[in-house]
Amino acid sequence: MKLTKQNLQPATEKIYDTIVVGGGAGGLSAGVYLQRYLLNTLIIDKGKARSFWMIELHNYLGLPPDTPGRSVLRQGKEHFLSLGGDLLDAYVEEVIDEGETFAVKVKVGRNNSQYHTFRTKYLIAASGIIDYLPVLENMRNVYDYAGHNLHVCLICDGYEMTDKKVGVFASSAGNAEVVFPVGWFTGEITLFTQGLFEVNDDLRNRLEVLGYKIEETPVEQFIGEDHQMTGVELTDGRVVELETGLISMGSQYHATYLNKFDLEKQGGNLVTDKMARTSHPRIFAIGDLKVGLNQVVIAAADGALAATQIWRDIRRSTPPKTPTK
Amino acid sequence: MKLTKQNLQPATEKIYDTIVVGGGAGGLSAGVYLQRYLLNTLIIDKGKARSFWMIELHNYLGLPPDTPGRSVLRQGKEHFLSLGGDLLDAYVEEVIDEGETFAVKVKVGRNNSQYHTFRTKYLIAASGIIDYLPVLENMRNVYDYAGHNLHVCLICDGYEMTDKKVGVFASSAGNAEVVFPVGWFTGEITLFTQGLFEVNDDLRNRLEVLGYKIEETPVEQFIGEDHQMTGVELTDGRVVELETGLISMGSQYHATYLNKFDLEKQGGNLVTDKMARTSHPRIFAIGDLKVGLNQVVIAAADGALAATQIWRDIRRSTPPKTPTK
Repeated sequence: MKLTKQNLQPATEKIYDTIVVGGGAGGLSAGVYLQRYLLNTLIIDKGKARSFWMIELHNYLGLPPDTPGRSVLRQGKEHFLSLGGDLLDAYVEEVIDEGETFAVKVKVGRNNSQYHTFRTKYLIAASGIIDYLPVLENMRNVYDYAGHNLHVCLICDGYEMTDKKVGVFASSAGNAEVVFPVGWFTGEITLFTQGLFEVNDDLRNRLEVLGYKIEETPVEQFIGEDHQMTGVELTDGRVVELETGLISMGSQYHATYLNKFDLEKQGGNLVTDKMARTSHPRIFAIGDLKVGLNQVVIAAADGALAATQIWRDIRRSTPPKTPTK
Repeated sequence: MKLTKQNLQPATEKIYDTIVVGGGAGGLSAGVYLQRYLLNTLIIDKGKARSFWMIELHNYLGLPPDTPGRSVLRQGKEHFLSLGGDLLDAYVEEVIDEGETFAVKVKVGRNNSQYHTFRTKYLIAASGIIDYLPVLENMRNVYDYAGHNLHVCLICDGYEMTDKKVGVFASSAGNAEVVFPVGWFTGEITLFTQGLFEVNDDLRNRLEVLGYKIEETPVEQFIGEDHQMTGVELTDGRVVELETGLISMGSQYHATYLNKFDLEKQGGNLVTDKMARTSHPRIFAIGDLKVGLNQVVIAAADGALAATQIWRDIRRSTPPKTPTK
């Protein structure tokens, strides 16, 4: 059921089989599988999964390629709730390992916040990442285009850039490297450093050889209408025309609640085994938090894997049912 | 485009980036990703993927839980074709490694068959498995219930068996072991050996302790109406009432065309790395053919992984595009 400040008290007194932190594609898929394994599940969702921002999901099997990310999330929530799962909009502040259980401390509500503790045998970290966007005085201007023709994921949307004039907005020499795989899709590339980093000679040479441009003046604003970006205005007043863009400025990981567990990582991502288990035997990580491709269908599959392994763990330590008569 | 006997000639003269053997969930997902990576893809489908038989897909994120498997396949085919992919209904008889390419020999049409050879740089084996079903004189009687309340996949449909009288139809002591995880969902279990194997003392004892029944007389027919099985009639005329069933008789792997490659296997399944690559660097395996969970969402994710790795391979050996002017 949908938990609220008003009705959540009984849920704080039981022990869940699994608490899933994050109600995005991974968390909801895990929730559906867990409930179908007859495991009591609570999904704690702070809202606005990365896929929530996807205007159109172009590559998810079974859905028309103009399906909005948020409609997948809505369907997933309905599905999970229809199976008897519990869902709470809240922010996970801390997770404490109590041995057999975890205590999951949450803050409910931005205003008149309540603080509660839930308990669970297993934890699935499905809280994902969020992309850093160019910081402008008027952030509304960024949100107007991000997710439309100003993309954040080359694997998802490179196809949409085919043979178009693309601006790549990077915040470091490292994430500027995405320019070269962008070159698979189009040769009309301008790298915008936004003045955030120095372009070293090696990178400059490799760009020049290919005829890719570099623009180091900071961006004043994106230009366009009806969510279609048509270029950028720079702080010196010049305008660069573009047909599409890719933001490559890194991501923020939503997993501070895991910090003190010292889980094995690779880069910022959690290392997991084939069943999405982290280096802690009762903590699983799925979707964008873990090493791998950041794709909705991968997150959904991760959810199935983690749920299945948790079911196996719990089932193997529980006697089977016997006839009632 | 949809290839047919009439229009396939030009396709036999080119070299595809990838040929996908199998147009099920995995193959179609791979096809969608590959086409979006601007890679020329041919899917060769012999028809009737395992998911084609699924009356309702209960656990695929984003789709209502009564979605038929075949509607996912239909949507996937449309999606793939809309991206310019080629699709051919045919049977792959043999694959020959020519070094840089594979020659894929196919038979088109059951009647007045044509034999053609297609060429590709990479191969994705997505041809899956099909479950063995109880062999009765009247197979129509099996098909009437299979996929409705006579299931073949515990992970998918255990939930549907919750606290119901279930018949487990096994063909060996090995696959009879599924009885115990079935016991997670219900205690009312009868194991039907159909006279196909001896129940050894160990298994018999473990079943008896739990109060699970054993029925060794062969099945004459399933009883029920409107696709809802309500029991079985045995060859000695007795009737056993049931509310649901699980068939656990193993599966046939659709991959004879790979036999001579001597790929690394585990049980009957192909071993792959994290990107679904087999022990042959240009052959990928996805979905039920490979080690892992046999789930639609996993196959779809595998398709994304294999396609992405093939794109990386090809991209890294190809110069990027440069400006046109």
